[in-house]
Amino acid sequence: MSDGRGVTDNVLGQRYGGGAPASIAPANEVIALLQRHRSVRSFTDEGIDDDTVTLIVSAAQSAATSSNMQAWSVIEVRDPDHKAAISVLAGDQAFIRQAPVFLIFVADWARHRGVAEHRGEAAEGVEYIESTLVGFIDAALAAQNATIAAESLGLGAVYVGAVRNRPEELADLLELPPGAFPVMGMALGHPDPTDRAGVKPRLPQDVVRHRETYRPAPDEAIVAYDDAVRTYYAGQGMSHGWIGTILGRIRSATTLRGREKLRAALERRGLPSK
Amino acid sequence: MSDGRGVTDNVLGQRYGGGAPASIAPANEVIALLQRHRSVRSFTDEGIDDDTVTLIVSAAQSAATSSNMQAWSVIEVRDPDHKAAISVLAGDQAFIRQAPVFLIFVADWARHRGVAEHRGEAAEGVEYIESTLVGFIDAALAAQNATIAAESLGLGAVYVGAVRNRPEELADLLELPPGAFPVMGMALGHPDPTDRAGVKPRLPQDVVRHRETYRPAPDEAIVAYDDAVRTYYAGQGMSHGWIGTILGRIRSATTLRGREKLRAALERRGLPSK
Repeated sequence: MSDGRGVTDNVLGQRYGGGAPASIAPANEVIALLQRHRSVRSFTDEGIDDDTVTLIVSAAQSAATSSNMQAWSVIEVRDPDHKAAISVLAGDQAFIRQAPVFLIFVADWARHRGVAEHRGEAAEGVEYIESTLVGFIDAALAAQNATIAAESLGLGAVYVGAVRNRPEELADLLELPPGAFPVMGMALGHPDPTDRAGVKPRLPQDVVRHRETYRPAPDEAIVAYDDAVRTYYAGQGMSHGWIGTILGRIRSATTLRGREKLRAALERRGLPSK
Repeated sequence: MSDGRGVTDNVLGQRYGGGAPASIAPANEVIALLQRHRSVRSFTDEGIDDDTVTLIVSAAQSAATSSNMQAWSVIEVRDPDHKAAISVLAGDQAFIRQAPVFLIFVADWARHRGVAEHRGEAAEGVEYIESTLVGFIDAALAAQNATIAAESLGLGAVYVGAVRNRPEELADLLELPPGAFPVMGMALGHPDPTDRAGVKPRLPQDVVRHRETYRPAPDEAIVAYDDAVRTYYAGQGMSHGWIGTILGRIRSATTLRGREKLRAALERRGLPSK
């Protein structure tokens, strides 16, 4: 890994698997930080103090939020037994136990419901999928600011979607009230310097960026990207591309690993997503 | 507005309406940038060149994405007539026409479906709410990186949730295929220096940050925050707090301004959210 200073061209080469956009304005340090993001799943023993998390959460709260609803919360988990119990519910991933801090970002309309109840007001608007989506969007925007703040401090982070595998058991463990639902976990720690995970290549920019109207990508662009992903993983002693991964993920309900029941879980937990 | 350099304590004072967390580690320039975010709805005539958008989209693509699915796309709109037509569908907001670039972030499983169809494979997994949520989360993570990249370049941005008011008409206008759905718009431009919008206060950190388990906020904390919001808006010649805003938003289906039909729209557009 380079230190990222002034190496934007190299980072972009890695980010696009050699197919970086040809001409590009000079980046600044912030954009260089964003471009060299990598998911960190291996941490040293070093802890993270309370002030650092305060700083990270202040950055998270500074993200935009739909109509200032702030329809999210974050649960900060440090207790080893608590982390162990959570990891069992979230794909049994060792790095959840290893990370000194595990954050769970939560879509949260329970707060608004409480304010309404306290004043004898109705809260029917919470029951629509629009509200569920706003809670998930708000939580994601906040989480992304938290990631960037953490990375700017030299910490590493990885998102954990597996908090949605058994969300009701997790909600019980975290004592979430009706209307609050886990969106994503985030393991936070000091990156293990021997970790080989690097800057993962993404789809060519032309595939995700559309001018004025949507244009489907030609299959050749997908096949070329599959090769770039294969090359990336080969460097880590693994052998898989992108096409097989996405086909495996979207084939059927059973490949969703429990998340095919998410709608019923949301409904039982006060977000019926009408 | 300060320039943000070394003024972290002041920015945090504004961010928490005077109730900033007492002790906090020194911030760096990245965190200072995140903390001083404000939504910009008024732009100068100055344009944004293609390379700048390329840089912004490269930052967006560098955000984490669930299992590298990259289940999002962005539509870049510059044509004045096209922007005008979009603004009519998105709350008729003038700044959409005024901004030199309007981005629409899209939850996008159409690409994956295309890859599956091309290979004679099924794509039933796309039909579950888990996939809809992943698309929305991926789009939000990417959009937040785009916002930060833009702000680091001195540009201003505001999210536009109103792209979900009349999403099917908008999808037609943008020629979105089945499985692609508008999540958020983003107006991008050079901030009008006379704009008075500042750093908006957020809920006290203790209200959104929970230790180990969720703890509901006492109503006094909500009332105190309502006062902080009222003071903020009073400085801009407006008079409203937080409690009235959220009660108005959640009271009933009719306060969702068309978005109470979102679930049916998602279903018709290939994201049935089972």
